[in-house]
Amino acid sequence: MATGQETEADLEAYDELETRIERIANVGNAAGILRWDQEVIMPEGGTPARAKQLSTLSSLSHELLTDERTGELLETLEDQDLEGEQAAVVREVRRQYDRATSVPQDLVEEISETTSNAHPTWMEAREADDFSIFEPTLEKLVELKREYATHVDSDADPYAVLFAEYEPYLDLETAERVLERLRDELVPLIEAIDESDAEIETDAFAGEFDDDDQEALARDVLDSLGYDWDRGRLDTAPHPFSSGTQFDARVTTRFDESDLLGSITSTIHEFGHANYTLGLPDEGYGTPLGESRDLTVHESQSRLWENHVGRSRAFWEHFLPIARERFPELEAVSPEAAYEAANQVYDDNLIRVEADELTYHLHIVIRFEIERDLIAGDLEVADVPEAWNDKYEAYLGIRPETDADGCLQDIHWSHGSFGYFPTYSLGSVLAAQLYTAAEDDLGDLDERTREGEFADLNQWLREEIHAHGKRYTTPDLVEEATGEGYTADHFLAYAKSKYGELYDLEGY
Amino acid sequence: MATGQETEADLEAYDELETRIERIANVGNAAGILRWDQEVIMPEGGTPARAKQLSTLSSLSHELLTDERTGELLETLEDQDLEGEQAAVVREVRRQYDRATSVPQDLVEEISETTSNAHPTWMEAREADDFSIFEPTLEKLVELKREYATHVDSDADPYAVLFAEYEPYLDLETAERVLERLRDELVPLIEAIDESDAEIETDAFAGEFDDDDQEALARDVLDSLGYDWDRGRLDTAPHPFSSGTQFDARVTTRFDESDLLGSITSTIHEFGHANYTLGLPDEGYGTPLGESRDLTVHESQSRLWENHVGRSRAFWEHFLPIARERFPELEAVSPEAAYEAANQVYDDNLIRVEADELTYHLHIVIRFEIERDLIAGDLEVADVPEAWNDKYEAYLGIRPETDADGCLQDIHWSHGSFGYFPTYSLGSVLAAQLYTAAEDDLGDLDERTREGEFADLNQWLREEIHAHGKRYTTPDLVEEATGEGYTADHFLAYAKSKYGELYDLEGY
Repeated sequence: MATGQETEADLEAYDELETRIERIANVGNAAGILRWDQEVIMPEGGTPARAKQLSTLSSLSHELLTDERTGELLETLEDQDLEGEQAAVVREVRRQYDRATSVPQDLVEEISETTSNAHPTWMEAREADDFSIFEPTLEKLVELKREYATHVDSDADPYAVLFAEYEPYLDLETAERVLERLRDELVPLIEAIDESDAEIETDAFAGEFDDDDQEALARDVLDSLGYDWDRGRLDTAPHPFSSGTQFDARVTTRFDESDLLGSITSTIHEFGHANYTLGLPDEGYGTPLGESRDLTVHESQSRLWENHVGRSRAFWEHFLPIARERFPELEAVSPEAAYEAANQVYDDNLIRVEADELTYHLHIVIRFEIERDLIAGDLEVADVPEAWNDKYEAYLGIRPETDADGCLQDIHWSHGSFGYFPTYSLGSVLAAQLYTAAEDDLGDLDERTREGEFADLNQWLREEIHAHGKRYTTPDLVEEATGEGYTADHFLAYAKSKYGELYDLEGY
Repeated sequence: MATGQETEADLEAYDELETRIERIANVGNAAGILRWDQEVIMPEGGTPARAKQLSTLSSLSHELLTDERTGELLETLEDQDLEGEQAAVVREVRRQYDRATSVPQDLVEEISETTSNAHPTWMEAREADDFSIFEPTLEKLVELKREYATHVDSDADPYAVLFAEYEPYLDLETAERVLERLRDELVPLIEAIDESDAEIETDAFAGEFDDDDQEALARDVLDSLGYDWDRGRLDTAPHPFSSGTQFDARVTTRFDESDLLGSITSTIHEFGHANYTLGLPDEGYGTPLGESRDLTVHESQSRLWENHVGRSRAFWEHFLPIARERFPELEAVSPEAAYEAANQVYDDNLIRVEADELTYHLHIVIRFEIERDLIAGDLEVADVPEAWNDKYEAYLGIRPETDADGCLQDIHWSHGSFGYFPTYSLGSVLAAQLYTAAEDDLGDLDERTREGEFADLNQWLREEIHAHGKRYTTPDLVEEATGEGYTADHFLAYAKSKYGELYDLEGY
């Protein structure tokens, strides 16, 4: 420990840093509300003004962060032997500060402008099913993001730098190792499923389901899982998401009359995200201690609820009677049939967002391998469509007939987001690890799920994950919560056991 | 004109000022969305975080405005002979800058903190019907606002300085003269109405009206008046308001099953505000040229639509058939009966927000006289309830039995808003002047109203008022639009003629 006098000076510097980052957080959270509003309720005509408002908030936030006073405070605090929460705050702010100050403002603006224009170009290319329309833009984005990565760390693998924007603490080697393992173990599992003779009930949710009744049921789902309506809302959005803070974390979903199951699982997924946000400590608001860990952990929360709870037999035993009150036609459906329908594995689906729990990861692996090669310069942009189609054939046994259903299907690259996709799989893998650890601590969770009792599981997640904010790095958080390092063992065991049983597979 | 080289330097300084104020406007408009969200859809639990977000945006905006660079740019530009729009922008920014820099930050924060706490205290006092609960807070606020005014201009009447926050260009003498005239001419008119034997249809809208159908009808109203849904929305709020920019100006209203007429007139009123905002020029966004003139002009727009259009016979001839489609029970109501019900003058109403078109102004006069005396030190805070009740008795012939129905009824003082109330009456007066001028230019408007044709009137308002933003000061804007100075002549002529006919008054 430092002397008393130094401690007081530390405290002053720490308080000043805290005040500074709280302002940045407030600007960021204000921007979050503006984006929610834009996605959910803003009239179309508001777009030009909204873009300007968001741009100003973004540049103000950047200026506050990169102000040289932030750097001075960090240096002062790093000279002291801070511990615990304060050390964690300094670590996280240092990381943001270094990233923000290392990239020239010109480049930030060029990327921002290029991605603004990239979005309509990607839309046009996808609608015209013509990759060549998007090709020059994608080339430019790859080049700019490579340049960006070099500014952040000229010694590192540029793709590792980009990946770290979304997942800063699980290194790229870990991601690579896990994704390779998913590919190597899921490809044969999916092949075995394709060859299985098991008859799965796939039509349990066939039919037309009124949108308003679906909305009422989505509210039932959220009620049942324990969503805190005093700090949240449910609305619809074309691309469901959840956003907010621990004081106000909102869920969006969407309704398609022919896809009741989709709206239920999507609502559960977004509940998982919002529920994580709501579990962040109130007193940490405005600092990293009150902010969620990065995308891997966030996705672990949504997938845990969506897959381990919402796609379990026990859940359908609990929830089908509730669903029948909204949709009496489900009287004819058994919990087992609902369970099977919610877990069918598709052998002909080309679209990531419509994928099942298993093939999903191969969609991710394909994108990961392609974008890693693109950024490394080992793959030319012009060759993306063929590489894409070859990989779909190799890993999933299907070949897209159009680029619209192939490499143009996802929005992410038009946002300049390279390195984002892997966190979807890494999060699902973590979900299985956390669910296993929760059962180790709490005992069988299926029984509670069957009774609609989710409080124990939620309490466990609150204590082990949510309450810590960014206090721990991702690997330390996993270690603290589960007693072991980050691993795909539990996900693969879960996948093999569940689908081996469901599809009556030999050797699984 | 300056030389070519100087002109270029001017342009550079002007562009820099413009960039600077656009950022301030973007922050302000972002805060506007956050406030809209808070009033309309935010879950209750979001309050603490929202308060912090708004406080940060407010202080950032203050810092951007009061930055010494703003002052340097203003001085540079004032040394040049700017004309027209550029001169207007410099004039408006100078005014904001001088106000913002003249008041010490400590005082601004003390006022902000005191008003934050004043709101719950006022609520408590009103609920307990006990002025003494609010008295110390009101004393503090009067003192702080007096201090504030002295900082802005130590030579001026403090109340004039406060009034100018809401209406900077119509001076307090004008306001005083107009309000005195309203008092002197409306008191006898209202007395004559009270004594009139005319039988007015007051029950045309008696009954219970379903909220959802009322909402559908509110949308009909907005459709009929020409609201631009591509740049707006309708929602409900406990205290209806409208807010936004020319790209996105939203209306809120409220529904009470026993008050259909109230929801219609309130919706028309808010349409007037939103329609003004939507008429501001797109290209002026972010500068005073794309911002509305102050509260007098804003209120003139809402009152013109609410009173001169929405309370006219012609409007009810047009709108009653539309209303009957939502509420078939209105088949029994004639347009004349609807007109009478929409224009009845109450002889026993103590509540400003429930007042009719005539007595309304006496509610305002009373508040004006009291707050002017309070700020001048001619009235002690402790004596407010008695002064209030005496004035109600003198001007309206009714005496509140409780402070909850008397001096505690309005929220404004708890916001520290002294000088705000007069703009309500000044705006109504201007509405009549503008409506008269529009009819002078366009000919009879009743016939168009009867046909549901509002485009000509709206076009006139667009060209004469909306399109100018803050280009002209209020008096110049009135002069440009109407060919004469600001005057209450038209309002009083309108009031006497309309109510003289309706109540069959001799000598009117």
